[in-house]
Amino acid sequence: MPKYYFEDFSVDWTAEYGPRRVTREEIIGFAAQYDPQPMHLDEEAARHTMLGGLAASGWHTCCIMMRIIADNLLLDAASMGAPGIDEVKWLRPLRPGDSLTVRGSVTNARASQSRPDRGFVTFFWEVFNARGERIMTLTCPQMLLRRDADLPASRAPA
Amino acid sequence: MPKYYFEDFSVDWTAEYGPRRVTREEIIGFAAQYDPQPMHLDEEAARHTMLGGLAASGWHTCCIMMRIIADNLLLDAASMGAPGIDEVKWLRPLRPGDSLTVRGSVTNARASQSRPDRGFVTFFWEVFNARGERIMTLTCPQMLLRRDADLPASRAPA
Repeated sequence: MPKYYFEDFSVDWTAEYGPRRVTREEIIGFAAQYDPQPMHLDEEAARHTMLGGLAASGWHTCCIMMRIIADNLLLDAASMGAPGIDEVKWLRPLRPGDSLTVRGSVTNARASQSRPDRGFVTFFWEVFNARGERIMTLTCPQMLLRRDADLPASRAPA
Repeated sequence: MPKYYFEDFSVDWTAEYGPRRVTREEIIGFAAQYDPQPMHLDEEAARHTMLGGLAASGWHTCCIMMRIIADNLLLDAASMGAPGIDEVKWLRPLRPGDSLTVRGSVTNARASQSRPDRGFVTFFWEVFNARGERIMTLTCPQMLLRRDADLPASRAPA
């Protein structure tokens, strides 16, 4: 049974997760599979780009953040998924050996008008490196069941 | 030397890339690493979620799209990276065995006011499955060098 439902998130909710260290091998491995641009793959090539050295793909930062949020929150929540992402900002490079911390807050929470079993929560996620510099922000709406919802019926395909 | 520069993208630009088949093993492998929610990991568990069966993490769809765009466009472009993503919409599940096609268009292109060597292009990306159903859209600003820019100097760290 989930621990967290729609009712557990309001605009005064905050959380902090991590740290999670990111290795050079992970950065290169992800890039080789999903974003094989030189600045994410090779130190020497990266030096000549505007990143000034090897740095993770912005998508990799998103995926690591997703894993941190899944482990710490979503796997224990009555989540019904997310319709998308409102905005991602890549502010600074993620370097090999950096340790990431994720801070979450809620910018909006509202019950669904049409479906009384659920609500929508807009999370604002901030990702920091070990020096406390903010390297990414992300705004993401999330659909969650209400605590009193009839779980089996409401989880049927929409 | 890059093939594509800022000048090559205007609001009449379009492109179509793919198809690229996505296997069940890929979907589960990505989920195990980055988004271990039951609907992305296990067919039986997924049946009881609102996705009604195993489907890829939305982040996985983003990453596959990124790879398709890198292979077909960005690795040949004078790209200076992206400051973020404006909006992602996950419209339909990506199922095991689906083949993805990516369609790109340009919604805005403008030269930088402060830096004459570069410009900003806003791409609108649409991802379709094999039945032609749109499963994801993504709006992404991209920074590109102008063709007449002095490459080595302008690629120095900003």
